Amino acid sequence: MNHPTPVSEALRRPAPAALIDELRDLFGERLSTATAVREHHGRDESPFAAVPPDAVVHAHDADEVAAAVAACARHRVPVIPYGVGSSLEGQLLAVQGGVSIDLSQMNRVVSIDAEDLTATVEPGVTRKQLNDALKDTGLFFPIDPGADASIGGMTATRASGTNAVRYGSMRENVLGLEVVTASGERIRTGTRARKSAAGYDLTRLFVGSEGTLGVVTEITVRLYPQPEALSAATVSFRSVKGAVDTVIQTIQLGVPVARSEFLDAASVRAINAYSKLSLREQTTLFFEFHGSEASVAEQARAVQDIARENGGEDFEWATRPEDRSRLWNARHTAYFAGLQMRPGARAITTDTCVPISRLADSLIGARAILDRAKVPTAILGHVGDGNFHCMLLVDPDDPDEIAECERLNAEIVRLAVAMDGTCTGEHGVGLHKMGFLREEAGDGAIAMMRAIKRALDPDDIMNPGKIFAL
Amino acid sequence: MNHPTPVSEALRRPAPAALIDELRDLFGERLSTATAVREHHGRDESPFAAVPPDAVVHAHDADEVAAAVAACARHRVPVIPYGVGSSLEGQLLAVQGGVSIDLSQMNRVVSIDAEDLTATVEPGVTRKQLNDALKDTGLFFPIDPGADASIGGMTATRASGTNAVRYGSMRENVLGLEVVTASGERIRTGTRARKSAAGYDLTRLFVGSEGTLGVVTEITVRLYPQPEALSAATVSFRSVKGAVDTVIQTIQLGVPVARSEFLDAASVRAINAYSKLSLREQTTLFFEFHGSEASVAEQARAVQDIARENGGEDFEWATRPEDRSRLWNARHTAYFAGLQMRPGARAITTDTCVPISRLADSLIGARAILDRAKVPTAILGHVGDGNFHCMLLVDPDDPDEIAECERLNAEIVRLAVAMDGTCTGEHGVGLHKMGFLREEAGDGAIAMMRAIKRALDPDDIMNPGKIFAL
Repeated sequence: MNHPTPVSEALRRPAPAALIDELRDLFGERLSTATAVREHHGRDESPFAAVPPDAVVHAHDADEVAAAVAACARHRVPVIPYGVGSSLEGQLLAVQGGVSIDLSQMNRVVSIDAEDLTATVEPGVTRKQLNDALKDTGLFFPIDPGADASIGGMTATRASGTNAVRYGSMRENVLGLEVVTASGERIRTGTRARKSAAGYDLTRLFVGSEGTLGVVTEITVRLYPQPEALSAATVSFRSVKGAVDTVIQTIQLGVPVARSEFLDAASVRAINAYSKLSLREQTTLFFEFHGSEASVAEQARAVQDIARENGGEDFEWATRPEDRSRLWNARHTAYFAGLQMRPGARAITTDTCVPISRLADSLIGARAILDRAKVPTAILGHVGDGNFHCMLLVDPDDPDEIAECERLNAEIVRLAVAMDGTCTGEHGVGLHKMGFLREEAGDGAIAMMRAIKRALDPDDIMNPGKIFAL
Repeated sequence: MNHPTPVSEALRRPAPAALIDELRDLFGERLSTATAVREHHGRDESPFAAVPPDAVVHAHDADEVAAAVAACARHRVPVIPYGVGSSLEGQLLAVQGGVSIDLSQMNRVVSIDAEDLTATVEPGVTRKQLNDALKDTGLFFPIDPGADASIGGMTATRASGTNAVRYGSMRENVLGLEVVTASGERIRTGTRARKSAAGYDLTRLFVGSEGTLGVVTEITVRLYPQPEALSAATVSFRSVKGAVDTVIQTIQLGVPVARSEFLDAASVRAINAYSKLSLREQTTLFFEFHGSEASVAEQARAVQDIARENGGEDFEWATRPEDRSRLWNARHTAYFAGLQMRPGARAITTDTCVPISRLADSLIGARAILDRAKVPTAILGHVGDGNFHCMLLVDPDDPDEIAECERLNAEIVRLAVAMDGTCTGEHGVGLHKMGFLREEAGDGAIAMMRAIKRALDPDDIMNPGKIFAL
């Protein structure tokens, strides 16, 4: 796997033996410098080749995180927080060396405050684990990026996913945090109140900061009552435009759909093969409706009418829980299903998000760009938010092919940015989108981000080399 | 009016004649140093005595704002952005001298993008003006703090109000900004995409920063389809607890009420007198429901059942638009109605917000504290969010009375903070809550806010002396 990884030897600040000794004193056998462990922590689901950290520590609590960060700070050595490794843009690669702090063993659900519709968790708790813990409360945590990501990682990347059209992203659903700062201090941001006007919104500053400002050690999230009724449906279209117009009109009418997902014919073909489904292999929308029995019926009727007017065919219902989960499991494994279009390939994945009125232009434009690719491609995404992903399946050993697909990727991103959209709706910037972020945000905004980073992490030890060059 | 205003002569940085000359060159007759104009711009709706700026300029566009800030920056003189003057915590007082930039003439609705459910406005556009401009689009802007505040001011204070329980606050509803930085540069934050994971959330950093990081010169906000059906209702209770439990159970059940407002008997008495209503003068809830005809009926039925189980009486409907607006106008003028409880008085107003499970304890506790006051008091608020306001009507010429009421205010705030709540749900910190913010956020978080402020405004010219002491 030799997708070009932006590593600069000049910037490397490897962990010196003295630091490793200090960390061994703190973590004992939970410090590892074994190659396999370092390799595992130096990669994510991005197409980049692994860049292993110099050491990995497995933290058990916030005090340990604070001690590890303080030790790294004394040696001015980079710190990379690690959850489950499901990030997609190279966020976890140790491009300047340093120490990976694995938070997966900090996986306690600290409290479930059902009456307040909040839960407080350690960063290693995954979204499925949290929802399992909530089972008997009648509540659920809606943010669902597909992967069983850690809540800490989802906080760091400002994750969203299929439910965001109704429930918002991590931006809207994190109430407060405990954070270990770059100097190894523990601070709290926010409270458990649903809203606040109390000073700078430090919570929102950390949400989406991809580990570059501190390590999140506790997260308080909003919960929602499980809907009284749920139903899901699929509908297929002969044209991309018919599907997109259906989504746009649904949003503009204010129908509170819980999920509204787009899959092109290639994606449907891939999930049919991978998940043993028999969906008609053309452009397809997946919907889910949440609410009371009456409201779900009303929403479904409204969407069905809109779909029919836009050429929707084969409206199919999944009302039984097992059919629904089969459908959504298929959607959630679409990334892995897509990878099977070309065994051995890695995916370059776009993540643009545009204003809803530009969705058709953006999606049809992206399709035209992808049609020039010599590799298998597919489009799928959370179109109710204007967010979709193009997958380009590249041979990791073919630098020319990778370069060509990155050029197409760049065209798709520039198209979205020109429409007043963003290069990343939910995956974050990491290494992969640093150039795109500069184009999107402009020098002034990047300078402001840099100033904040320098103020909070003067020695640039927190996940350096990500989001922007300092 | 001599409520003690925290002015330190040592920190004053008055505008020198050279700066006034420069500003006169830029603004001509739109620069004023007249006493009346300065007095008007040195106060807000807080109980503090006015502290006038040295000069006021009326800006017509972002370039003029940038030029004014750049001039002030060269002279290291404070800049105070001014909207309509409706802030409640002393945000507008020129405690260190300087120049007030009045943005009320920057009142163009730049664009209404109905298909995208967004609008872009200049900061002087008020919420009513925006909603008037939206009238024919079938859309509306929901954030409604009562006062006809400017959208710029609402952004700066992270305003919310009666609709926040359903639609969120300015935190959730600002998509992007144009900002003039402390050095007089224009930058953009965010895009018009509904969600983004593109770098630090500068938009959310400016929302709620109360003019201390820059001047907001353009705001893109989210809009919502006008609900197909709307209805409002009032219900009264013999006990505070019955009313609060009704709200708590409504939220916990997930009934998507659009408004759920609490008024104690004193508040009802005040608005009956002020708005010529004849509501029963006991604890009362106001509700509003938005949705389809069927969903509004369903929500209303659910709330009516919950209210009845909690001792609710006199459930009264306001389905005709004129009855509804009469009701909500009465709610919106409750602050002014309350002031009439004691002619000539000024209000000290609390703004605590607590997790919903603590609402009854917090409200009943606040009532017990208020019962010790020797002045008229009332409680009202957005209890669906856990947010309510206590009004203490003080004689502005009686320092002992003011001091005593501030002590009661402090007790109410500490009670909320001890419940993992916040000292300010929606009014912001300004001058009035600086001490409370320190108690709530802790030294570590305040140090982080200070570091950000120093990084973005090294000479501390942007609305200095507010939120925290630098």
